[in-house]
Amino acid sequence: MCVVAGDPGHILDEMRFMTSTPEETLRRVVGFFQPFVAAGQIHAIGVASFGPLDLNPQSPTYGFIAATPKPGWSNTDVRGTLQRALQVKIAFDTDVNAAALGESMWGASKGCDPSLYLTIGTGIGGGYIKDGRPLIGLLNPEMGHIRIPHSRELDPFIGSCPFHGDCFEGLASGPAIEKRLGLTGAAVPEEAAFWDLEVDYIASALMNYILTLSPKKIILGGGVMQREFLFPKIRRRVRELLNGYVSSKSVLEDIDDYILPPGLGTQSGSLGAIALAMQIDDSSDNPRF
Amino acid sequence: MCVVAGDPGHILDEMRFMTSTPEETLRRVVGFFQPFVAAGQIHAIGVASFGPLDLNPQSPTYGFIAATPKPGWSNTDVRGTLQRALQVKIAFDTDVNAAALGESMWGASKGCDPSLYLTIGTGIGGGYIKDGRPLIGLLNPEMGHIRIPHSRELDPFIGSCPFHGDCFEGLASGPAIEKRLGLTGAAVPEEAAFWDLEVDYIASALMNYILTLSPKKIILGGGVMQREFLFPKIRRRVRELLNGYVSSKSVLEDIDDYILPPGLGTQSGSLGAIALAMQIDDSSDNPRF
Repeated sequence: MCVVAGDPGHILDEMRFMTSTPEETLRRVVGFFQPFVAAGQIHAIGVASFGPLDLNPQSPTYGFIAATPKPGWSNTDVRGTLQRALQVKIAFDTDVNAAALGESMWGASKGCDPSLYLTIGTGIGGGYIKDGRPLIGLLNPEMGHIRIPHSRELDPFIGSCPFHGDCFEGLASGPAIEKRLGLTGAAVPEEAAFWDLEVDYIASALMNYILTLSPKKIILGGGVMQREFLFPKIRRRVRELLNGYVSSKSVLEDIDDYILPPGLGTQSGSLGAIALAMQIDDSSDNPRF
Repeated sequence: MCVVAGDPGHILDEMRFMTSTPEETLRRVVGFFQPFVAAGQIHAIGVASFGPLDLNPQSPTYGFIAATPKPGWSNTDVRGTLQRALQVKIAFDTDVNAAALGESMWGASKGCDPSLYLTIGTGIGGGYIKDGRPLIGLLNPEMGHIRIPHSRELDPFIGSCPFHGDCFEGLASGPAIEKRLGLTGAAVPEEAAFWDLEVDYIASALMNYILTLSPKKIILGGGVMQREFLFPKIRRRVRELLNGYVSSKSVLEDIDDYILPPGLGTQSGSLGAIALAMQIDDSSDNPRF
């Protein structure tokens, strides 16, 4: 998805197409943006990409998509290709970091720093915004793969993660639900006992993120979280698990306003890319850009 | 412990005494520092305190020790008392945040940002340094209480945490070892099968911190980590658990230099307090000070 915009209230143009080969996909992206660049209407482009990405500015492959199961995309120089073709500043980050940034600028976590955005869908990933920027340390966080309690008695499923088996993603992502039940998350009835397990896994992970990152707001997006009945159950379970240990009014009394769906709906990622572009346009010396 | 210093190479004076009542303890602290203040040798004092603390500068009880089982210390205005008596800037943080800061300034994580310091002793706590400062969000992180896998078959111990039972601290702290085995960690022989469980709990927690915080260096301090044979076992287990998912040379090849004991030995906390004082002396407008 390509968008030309100032902010969510000023969208000039947008285009959607299916991702194919890197060559064809990037050619179409360049073709879409070229006239706006030529007309002087674009100062910077933000790329919110599926990963894994090389986000280390000191690396010779900075701005590349790293080894990925997506056919043909391993080792693709996304940032360099766009930069050479369009000659504008290119900000480059993961889709989930961009979504987290978009939400913190215009969405449900606006005015709350630090904040956490979690997507629970085909995979599980999180973006943590601190001091207005996505946290990147040694590498980009991969917090969907944390270890959480898993009772083999209550849930004999061994987990779907090829790296870790029953990590959080291996237990609670969309594919984990489908492998376990033979049904997509969207098709599992609200009354199914399974949802208690799903809620427990999500709440365990949120407890860990709360205790480790202490976000002022948590946003849950992604396909699995389209099932809105999960929100009150997750909030209740998080409070039970914390058991009064985090003595903050936000968590103890206002948890309905602490764990929320995205304020930008399904647009968190694309508007997050605009937010990335705005940040790079403001900064001249940040080595990440 | 009270220290007057410029940096670890310039310690002017120090004094140790047992903590008693808040009144007597703070009176002795003030008495120790007063002559240095009067002589103009002290510009700022850093306090590295046991918790829980109120670290929110907007709170009316900022700088207080909050509800604590330590007799008489609940609701003690440590920062205000020192400030009124000594009339210098007072920086105030947890002992573990201070230790993390001291290590990042002069110890094993020097030059590595972000970094993580974890203490595994009577409790388990972590301090995360990002951009040269301890991370504080909604509250101070309490990452010792995260949920991790616990097999009741391999380890029937129900955990010692009064809030969460078998959270990380409830499974792996000094008191958890003692309750489970009837021996202090220091007395459990190196050959005991128990250590495999301890290593697994610590490695599980480290995996979660690595995936969530992506630190460039991890330092393990505290009483339990005095057993040095644990380090190579923990490193090996962390690498096994991550299973190649974090493709960083630091983790894959150089893990012996990634997970380390404190560079400042048992002085991380007291030198960390000096580091806190140095930071506040440099900053005039940070509301945390």
